[in-house]
Amino acid sequence: MKLYPETSFTAILESRIEACKNPVCFGLDPVLSLIPAEAGTPEDKIRKFYFDILEEFLKRNIKPAIVKPNSAYYECVSLEAMQVLAEIIATYRREGIPVILDAKRGDIGKTSEAYSKAAFDVYGADAVTVSPWMGSDSVKPFLREKNGIYVLLRTSNKGAADFQSTENVRAVAQKILEWDNGSVGAVVGATSPHELTEIANFISGQKKEIPFLIPGVSIPGVPGGQGGDAKTVMRALSEGGFKKNIHVLNSSSGLSYAWQAKGKASEYASACADALERLVESIL
Amino acid sequence: MKLYPETSFTAILESRIEACKNPVCFGLDPVLSLIPAEAGTPEDKIRKFYFDILEEFLKRNIKPAIVKPNSAYYECVSLEAMQVLAEIIATYRREGIPVILDAKRGDIGKTSEAYSKAAFDVYGADAVTVSPWMGSDSVKPFLREKNGIYVLLRTSNKGAADFQSTENVRAVAQKILEWDNGSVGAVVGATSPHELTEIANFISGQKKEIPFLIPGVSIPGVPGGQGGDAKTVMRALSEGGFKKNIHVLNSSSGLSYAWQAKGKASEYASACADALERLVESIL
Repeated sequence: MKLYPETSFTAILESRIEACKNPVCFGLDPVLSLIPAEAGTPEDKIRKFYFDILEEFLKRNIKPAIVKPNSAYYECVSLEAMQVLAEIIATYRREGIPVILDAKRGDIGKTSEAYSKAAFDVYGADAVTVSPWMGSDSVKPFLREKNGIYVLLRTSNKGAADFQSTENVRAVAQKILEWDNGSVGAVVGATSPHELTEIANFISGQKKEIPFLIPGVSIPGVPGGQGGDAKTVMRALSEGGFKKNIHVLNSSSGLSYAWQAKGKASEYASACADALERLVESIL
Repeated sequence: MKLYPETSFTAILESRIEACKNPVCFGLDPVLSLIPAEAGTPEDKIRKFYFDILEEFLKRNIKPAIVKPNSAYYECVSLEAMQVLAEIIATYRREGIPVILDAKRGDIGKTSEAYSKAAFDVYGADAVTVSPWMGSDSVKPFLREKNGIYVLLRTSNKGAADFQSTENVRAVAQKILEWDNGSVGAVVGATSPHELTEIANFISGQKKEIPFLIPGVSIPGVPGGQGGDAKTVMRALSEGGFKKNIHVLNSSSGLSYAWQAKGKASEYASACADALERLVESIL
């Protein structure tokens, strides 16, 4: 299902960020012990939780630019939870919100082709995250005209340092620019603004700009998050020579479980919308 | 469900290879256009195809040491096909055949923990393939005492050369030895015997030996395969200083779709069992 008139994923992103006046990516990562929705099965709880939150967004007329469910958090619940994942994707898209399926897939050519089909046709996502480790022929089968991919360029976890050396990150960045058909972006961790600037600089130095998906952004008034406040991140990109409004900042548990800071479990939907409002304000 | 008395995945492998007198890993990768099983839905066809093949194995008293369904080929069919994947895993395990879920997962720590739960608890696999790109904290959550992981060390596709340089492969191999709890192996492509020897040598030089999963092995009388006959592969390992019977050679479409060489679609199960027999003979 194609919801947008634009002809590339990057153009869709630009329109969305302009239309909703924020670059927020909302991570839809269900953790059952933190979901206070009153419903029968675990699957029902997850569905109700993210539907209630969407309803609250619509009531307040505030929407994230994009959402990003991480497949792992559905896969680990049950086979039925994968059906709920598909329903959540369809429901958010119906309200005009594009969906990144965070799945970090990648395999030999024909197998990546199968993963591409799963992400875009079975689950109906607009974009998918892809691991570069197996190289060009593992990434290219994901390329489509209006579906996006985000390649794992520099991740925000501690262990990333093991293999994502400056040299390797540059080699991957160079390949990403080769692969780019107007719909290729990169996942770049937000824990060090300096490194973010360096990576953006490497790309802008070649007169290119690709959409960054930046995880781990923190929200004012919400404890936790992997560090990196939104303004610092946006400044780091700009210092790296990036000029376009195509980059998104992700928050998953900071938004989903914002109710924890207030302690009122039943008000999870309004706590999430409050946190989204604060996050948006912290960027502007 | 624990089927084996052994206390590590490597020990389970050693027992299996000794018991069934072959080191074959049978890749269960359904491609609908090549599945002649007569049944209603695509999902029914896949189920019948791999159940018929298992029945033929049991009739002839020949079994592969292990099987390896690749998640992508089920994910791309439908949500219901994931249920069939779970049924296939349970059915092969019930006959004493361990299952590697080929999923090439890897994410930040708590997300890898969710993928680990999905592979071992929801799907019930004995082992899972894991991508190392995000580093130690993305791999360690998969470690369990009796469940195995195979880390993507050197893959057999052409694009692997993009980022899997000798230096990077050695860095990953070194980490694999650090992570090893007795249940950690590596995926190492079979297209170059020389490279296989080199990688084995790097590991055996440290007086270590870990289970290799070697894809792309060719079968006598079956066209295609990614090259690398079984004997050459086994010799390459031995020249690299490996001594144990814990390494497995994978064939997916060469076994599953062996009926194509004969042209008799209805005899797919016996064609597959014939091909398995020829593959086993080619190793001994």
